[in-house]
Amino acid sequence: MNITQQTIDEFMDNLASKAATPGGGSAAAVMGAMAAALISMVANLTIGKKNYATVETQMQDLLNKSENLKITMLDMIRADIEAFDLVMSAYKLPKATIDETNNRNQAIQVALKTATDVPLQCAEACRSVIQLSHLAAQIGNKNVVSDAGVAVLAAQAALRSAALNVYINIGNIEDQDFTKSREKKLNLLLEGADKQTEEIYQLVKSKL
Amino acid sequence: MNITQQTIDEFMDNLASKAATPGGGSAAAVMGAMAAALISMVANLTIGKKNYATVETQMQDLLNKSENLKITMLDMIRADIEAFDLVMSAYKLPKATIDETNNRNQAIQVALKTATDVPLQCAEACRSVIQLSHLAAQIGNKNVVSDAGVAVLAAQAALRSAALNVYINIGNIEDQDFTKSREKKLNLLLEGADKQTEEIYQLVKSKL
Repeated sequence: MNITQQTIDEFMDNLASKAATPGGGSAAAVMGAMAAALISMVANLTIGKKNYATVETQMQDLLNKSENLKITMLDMIRADIEAFDLVMSAYKLPKATIDETNNRNQAIQVALKTATDVPLQCAEACRSVIQLSHLAAQIGNKNVVSDAGVAVLAAQAALRSAALNVYINIGNIEDQDFTKSREKKLNLLLEGADKQTEEIYQLVKSKL
Repeated sequence: MNITQQTIDEFMDNLASKAATPGGGSAAAVMGAMAAALISMVANLTIGKKNYATVETQMQDLLNKSENLKITMLDMIRADIEAFDLVMSAYKLPKATIDETNNRNQAIQVALKTATDVPLQCAEACRSVIQLSHLAAQIGNKNVVSDAGVAVLAAQAALRSAALNVYINIGNIEDQDFTKSREKKLNLLLEGADKQTEEIYQLVKSKL
């Protein structure tokens, strides 16, 4: 069963349990998905309103983007678990002979690279959501501007959480070209994100 | 049906829809509940480990607290919806006569007060989770320290989100004694929370 078919109660109990998955990576994806969903909510409550007729096209475009990001991040809840489980399985491979040890090391390195790319994709989607929440707060229905505010906070927390999951995997990867390229990508995604979030948060507060 | 019995997929679709609830208040409570659940995860993966025998009692205490906060915040997902629906219902009351208008105004004021207290309680629980995540990051199983990091970020985002929901309701409440006392309480909960979160985040990063 896909994890997003679990009830919220079940998911929370599984998150809290001593099972290694779901963990912080999945929680980050849930936050990201909620952020995207809240942008959709703002768009859905703006589209079709007489007072917001002039921004109708922009809101429709916003909705398309936020719904796509929501789907992407819901899928990452599952992808993060699979990637983490792959790492755990690789570590459990036999290492009695030199061949086995080499094979195990290679499997670990491959798994760690996947486990780095999943949170990196999550970080990328979150940065997009931060961008979208700016437009939602600026021109969306003022009655639900606080939802755009919650969206940007959730997206920021998800982005920084995803970053932690990139760091933790990168630390064990031997391929320096890989780690450097991923660190560079991550730094670009983080650059200015906190400042942008703060600006949107203050914009929301000023409209309450 | 209680909302936490919805699947994650269903909840996300409902959050994104044009229905007024669930909205940002429930999303904040979900973030807070995930933060508490991640603290439980760290505690559960520390308790019983030989290398962490000296912190066993502290971890057991941490787990009790985080599980209670998880339950509290799961309940707030529902409570926020009910409080918001109460406000909406009050606004829909008839106002054809003076009596009706007075009755409606009174109902709105009562509903807004409840709708202020729910996010305030959420903010209080989130501040406690931030506190707990410090201990989890400090003395919990180092292998899952990134989960303590995600916990503190989720709790901070939930706290600031809850604050937005307090502000939005306070703006329409006439009872100045009430608004002042709630603002004072909120400010105390927000005070130093961002700084504390940043310190815990940096502590986590230093351990990765």
